[in-house]
Amino acid sequence: MITRADVEEAAERVGPRVRRTPVVEVEPEALGTPGPVLLKLELLQHTGSFKPRGMFNRILSAGTEAKAAGVIAASGGNAGLAVAYAAAQLGLRAEIFVPESSSPVKVQRLRALGAEVTVTGAFYADAYAASQRRAAASGALVVHAYDQPEVAAGQGTVARELEGQAAGFDTVLVAVGGGGLLEGIATWVQGSRRVVAVEPERCPTLARALAAGEPVDVEVGGLAADSLGARRSSASALAAAGRAGVVPVLVPDEAIAAARRRLWEQLRVVAEPGGACALAALVSGAYRPSPGERLAVVICGGNTDPSDL
Amino acid sequence: MITRADVEEAAERVGPRVRRTPVVEVEPEALGTPGPVLLKLELLQHTGSFKPRGMFNRILSAGTEAKAAGVIAASGGNAGLAVAYAAAQLGLRAEIFVPESSSPVKVQRLRALGAEVTVTGAFYADAYAASQRRAAASGALVVHAYDQPEVAAGQGTVARELEGQAAGFDTVLVAVGGGGLLEGIATWVQGSRRVVAVEPERCPTLARALAAGEPVDVEVGGLAADSLGARRSSASALAAAGRAGVVPVLVPDEAIAAARRRLWEQLRVVAEPGGACALAALVSGAYRPSPGERLAVVICGGNTDPSDL
Repeated sequence: MITRADVEEAAERVGPRVRRTPVVEVEPEALGTPGPVLLKLELLQHTGSFKPRGMFNRILSAGTEAKAAGVIAASGGNAGLAVAYAAAQLGLRAEIFVPESSSPVKVQRLRALGAEVTVTGAFYADAYAASQRRAAASGALVVHAYDQPEVAAGQGTVARELEGQAAGFDTVLVAVGGGGLLEGIATWVQGSRRVVAVEPERCPTLARALAAGEPVDVEVGGLAADSLGARRSSASALAAAGRAGVVPVLVPDEAIAAARRRLWEQLRVVAEPGGACALAALVSGAYRPSPGERLAVVICGGNTDPSDL
Repeated sequence: MITRADVEEAAERVGPRVRRTPVVEVEPEALGTPGPVLLKLELLQHTGSFKPRGMFNRILSAGTEAKAAGVIAASGGNAGLAVAYAAAQLGLRAEIFVPESSSPVKVQRLRALGAEVTVTGAFYADAYAASQRRAAASGALVVHAYDQPEVAAGQGTVARELEGQAAGFDTVLVAVGGGGLLEGIATWVQGSRRVVAVEPERCPTLARALAAGEPVDVEVGGLAADSLGARRSSASALAAAGRAGVVPVLVPDEAIAAARRRLWEQLRVVAEPGGACALAALVSGAYRPSPGERLAVVICGGNTDPSDL
């Protein structure tokens, strides 16, 4: 279980290695929200998503010996890019395992960041298992995409930073995949603000876990599965969600697509589907705030092909 | 001649009708700048450019009678969009004249904002002349794209707002078309900070005017001509540039394209070529700051097709 102190320490540890991403207040008419919203433009972070916050914190928390053999991760998505970037900045070797279904573009981007990429296995689980075997042999530091306390604490710095930029909000809406970002944010704001956890209807990983009272395996798919399609929540994210009284909300893919389009048309912001997911809860009415409830939304990623806008 | 007081009044007059656009500090490695830069993300403004600031100020400065017949402008670009938007917000009729060479997409966007669009004449000058005749007949309030004191004063609020967000810069780089934004910014910061006026080599309108000591007609073309391709600087922008000791810089189209690409790849910001022009002066080395010189750059527009990134 992580605490606010862990998030505070993560912020100090990571320091200027991550960008202080900007916040913009947008009037209700522009995006079709029930009131004005504060958007935390975390897609402007290094590698196009919030992930480096947690990855830097994980790697910087480890001792010199623990990472002498470099770092290792399994991910063809935002987590992999962030691990590759963080390792390169810290002068460490990075090995990233991705399944054969990964797009050559993503593999190429990982290599451009200096990572050694191993393409193996038909599914993510196969690539993950191979990375675990490799880590056991090499002694490299394993960096999980979301299920490590240092990772979640690092992601929580999004909320800490947002509070320093704009204190006036009652509720923060955040998209959920495996739960690292949610765990960090819920831990930071617990007791002071409401957290709304937004998932695509086709990736209801946290919603199902909350309903079951424990992490369960979930079928995932749809528009935002590339970034939010974790099949199982971390137990710690689920526990943090329970402690903070997180409000789970599901949105259909059409709402995600509409929110993404409005971000471009009204604000010239190019979010990936997962990055537009939290906003979709407001645009679609899936989350209905109380009158006067002041809203902040994390736009958490922009690793997308803008040509379909 | 406008003064700081005019910019101050414009800010009060326009108020929350324009967005307070965000600022992000970016480390030198990301964009290839000589030091860290503050980017003023003015492309997140209504209609995708800084233009509404000046257009609102022009229209709100006029008396009720002066705009009883609505507003009128000649522009198929950012100025036209901003006039159409401002008029719609204020419940006024807007007529926009555009030449036959205007893309149907732009005409459609103007109509979507509620403007009455007249497509006439082979060149911009023809559309402009037709708009002048129409204004004389209808009595509509003429809103110029840049050459009116209220317009320039409104654009100067970009600099005023930027100072309120991040005081720590010595120099601000800004792209120049007809000179409205430059005039407003130079007027606001005159004597306290350096202003670098960046133009494409193929649209050297201000640079030629500064060399000649008076506004001269210039051939314009190239990548950013749609937003920066004014053929003649306003006399007031030229005078303001002289008073403020503005440093003129020219950049090749290749540098603009490279800066635009880096904004996307490193920051997930989609600028139009004109919006990347000021940054291009740093990326290309066309402007070389002194050691320790702290830099701010206005990213002034994002009305572009992102599919070519």
